[in-house]
Amino acid sequence: MLELLKEKVLVANLDLVRHNLVVFTWGNASERDRETGYIVIKPSGIPYDQMKAEHMVVLDANGKSVEGELKPSSDAPTHVELYRQFKEIGGVVHTHSEWATSWAQAGKNIPAYGTTHADYFYGEIPCARALTREEVETDYEVNTGRVIVEIFESLDYMSLPGVLVHGHAPFTWGKDGKDAVDHAVVIEEVAKMAFRTEVLGNRIPIEQFLLDKHYLRKHGKDAYYGQQYD
Amino acid sequence: MLELLKEKVLVANLDLVRHNLVVFTWGNASERDRETGYIVIKPSGIPYDQMKAEHMVVLDANGKSVEGELKPSSDAPTHVELYRQFKEIGGVVHTHSEWATSWAQAGKNIPAYGTTHADYFYGEIPCARALTREEVETDYEVNTGRVIVEIFESLDYMSLPGVLVHGHAPFTWGKDGKDAVDHAVVIEEVAKMAFRTEVLGNRIPIEQFLLDKHYLRKHGKDAYYGQQYD
Amino acid sequence: MLELLKEKVLVANLDLVRHNLVVFTWGNASERDRETGYIVIKPSGIPYDQMKAEHMVVLDANGKSVEGELKPSSDAPTHVELYRQFKEIGGVVHTHSEWATSWAQAGKNIPAYGTTHADYFYGEIPCARALTREEVETDYEVNTGRVIVEIFESLDYMSLPGVLVHGHAPFTWGKDGKDAVDHAVVIEEVAKMAFRTEVLGNRIPIEQFLLDKHYLRKHGKDAYYGQQYD
Amino acid sequence: MLELLKEKVLVANLDLVRHNLVVFTWGNASERDRETGYIVIKPSGIPYDQMKAEHMVVLDANGKSVEGELKPSSDAPTHVELYRQFKEIGGVVHTHSEWATSWAQAGKNIPAYGTTHADYFYGEIPCARALTREEVETDYEVNTGRVIVEIFESLDYMSLPGVLVHGHAPFTWGKDGKDAVDHAVVIEEVAKMAFRTEVLGNRIPIEQFLLDKHYLRKHGKDAYYGQQYD
Repeated sequence: MLELLKEKVLVANLDLVRHNLVVFTWGNASERDRETGYIVIKPSGIPYDQMKAEHMVVLDANGKSVEGELKPSSDAPTHVELYRQFKEIGGVVHTHSEWATSWAQAGKNIPAYGTTHADYFYGEIPCARALTREEVETDYEVNTGRVIVEIFESLDYMSLPGVLVHGHAPFTWGKDGKDAVDHAVVIEEVAKMAFRTEVLGNRIPIEQFLLDKHYLRKHGKDAYYGQQYD
Repeated sequence: MLELLKEKVLVANLDLVRHNLVVFTWGNASERDRETGYIVIKPSGIPYDQMKAEHMVVLDANGKSVEGELKPSSDAPTHVELYRQFKEIGGVVHTHSEWATSWAQAGKNIPAYGTTHADYFYGEIPCARALTREEVETDYEVNTGRVIVEIFESLDYMSLPGVLVHGHAPFTWGKDGKDAVDHAVVIEEVAKMAFRTEVLGNRIPIEQFLLDKHYLRKHGKDAYYGQQYD
Repeated sequence: MLELLKEKVLVANLDLVRHNLVVFTWGNASERDRETGYIVIKPSGIPYDQMKAEHMVVLDANGKSVEGELKPSSDAPTHVELYRQFKEIGGVVHTHSEWATSWAQAGKNIPAYGTTHADYFYGEIPCARALTREEVETDYEVNTGRVIVEIFESLDYMSLPGVLVHGHAPFTWGKDGKDAVDHAVVIEEVAKMAFRTEVLGNRIPIEQFLLDKHYLRKHGKDAYYGQQYD
Repeated sequence: MLELLKEKVLVANLDLVRHNLVVFTWGNASERDRETGYIVIKPSGIPYDQMKAEHMVVLDANGKSVEGELKPSSDAPTHVELYRQFKEIGGVVHTHSEWATSWAQAGKNIPAYGTTHADYFYGEIPCARALTREEVETDYEVNTGRVIVEIFESLDYMSLPGVLVHGHAPFTWGKDGKDAVDHAVVIEEVAKMAFRTEVLGNRIPIEQFLLDKHYLRKHGKDAYYGQQYD
């Protein structure tokens, strides 16, 4: 079932390693099949160098295992919640990448200090509120998804394709698994440069018109970055 | 004698190199044989790229050389002391990894700022007290083990599998050599992210209930991370 | 047309990857043909690992496409403006390299804190002024070139072969594409060391006579660094 | 002439690249032949990947070229001055390695914050005084050697095998070229960890008795680190 998608999800997971975003098994990527709504996700705790497409787990839209003998990533309920609420997304990634995680641990939004940020994220990258004791003790992984959704009630998840979970680490998403991986790479890169920007003494984000210019030259109907077939 | 264990200890030592935790010969891993209580440890000052399983040195529970023509790591007495006092451990690792060593040089505990930390260490990673002049001048390496054991009189060494030696560097341990290596990787990663968390302005550790959740979903009888055979 | 130059420009672009100056497609190198005045530049948004010499785009001195089916880099108008105003240069490079970009995001000049800087840049590396709303909204990429040219009205672009664009990232240039790449490597290295110099507590640049000595032993008629044929 | 030594000096220079201590041609290693007193040194400005043993330049004890058609490293007069004054040394290395250079740019000594430092350097690593205008304008490279020698009038160059040149970068030395390279690696590593130690809030060096213990267990007549043949 969904053998092609399993291959794609395997590649997305291995790309996290290739981009130096994961240590051990600390990361997971998933993708949603547009037709069935099924979600293909990495199994829990399998080393990346032994991982094969056939190890991928298929879940239905409620997170129930449809195929696969291995347990899905322990973060699967968060992925499921994001897919449920963010209708347009097709891929989700979670890592403990070192710079974005440092911002999550500091509990701070990542301001848009430059055009690198603006090329992918249309505004500052939010840090969700900390979970309450109840939210942690019961249905922790689902509630992690819920606090993410909560902060996006007033934000557009398609133009801000990532978030920091307080005291934890980043989640990113996109139109498919590859897109979510790309955003995981970008959030790490802008987290690193934003850290240094602040240490150098600046805490003022770029102007809205510069943010508009860069975001909109790569996204939306008037985009002119890349080739036509992009 | 213990040829299989020597191979395992060689691999553990080479893994320290693979994970970028050592420069030159600044690191050592050992493992204890459960049956005989013998300890297999890296020889002193042999370059990693020339090291073979047959170079490993076998010590008895008192640190006396049982087999091997090479001298054991100069830190062997510290390993022996840890094995003597921490009955449940099966492996010990020492490195001068750059981030954990920076914290050791600062003489500061590493607070639990995030869930990456909580996944492996159940509370802040302690920095042992500085050794006195007498402790340094006589039986230095044994005393290094003793100040580690001292700080664990009020802490659980199995749920906090590592320590910073003041002005020196980290020691980690685990159920075997591989486990101790894993903890050396983790202590380095959390040291790096904790540094950045503090520079970003946060010095408040995560809540106890979040620490509980993450530590206990990977460890103990109710763990649900990874596969059943894990 | 200009097949040899296309090969050179391809190599220059791949060298940006080799020197770890680019993530994804965030960078571009171009070179000007001395005879025709034509500019050969990287296409927009093509992954580096699929890029071939035949993909390079040829522009005339006004930036009009002369050959090539692909669109040129979206930053091409900035390159064109620099070639138009800086008559002696033969190559231009743009990257979002992590350290130089952090300084650009902080909106700060990089002071000449040491002789590494002085070996290549004869004075502090300027950060251009931020573009106005009008400059961003109309002819953004051309205006990016214009604010660079503006700050060099009182500076010598040949002895200061690079600049930071405010809130954006560095541009460098040189006698050809390779030279511009070299300066992109150097600006990144001095940005990194200048950051640390400031964190260590020093904000005083080196003396003018030391700057003179180092710059002039590598450049100009009395240079004595390297071999005669250099 | 001295073909074997040329091979050794080539290897020493390439080891600087392997240890990530040099960018482009920013570094040089030399070794002194004990019998003739001749110095074999890297040529100036030759890329490392094209460098061969036959390119090495042989100088006499006064720095006069004895063999080799290429010009020696422009820093050769500094090497010569160090060999002249430090009778026991057999190798010299100069790099612009990123962390040690940052300390040199800050004009600060590197305090002995930990045992990694103490294993190789018996006290804080000094930063020489800045050169005067006259010293820079006339015989600059010789004077660079002289200010190094000056600060060692009250220090032991054999137990402190390295120095920071103010506003410039580190020089290290040792019993041969390989030893000098090792010290270049160590100075970089301790510079990095000392930076972080200070950012974490500690500026107090380790106790003298701990410095003694670590330095003397690796050096001198009572050393017990490594194997007998070491």
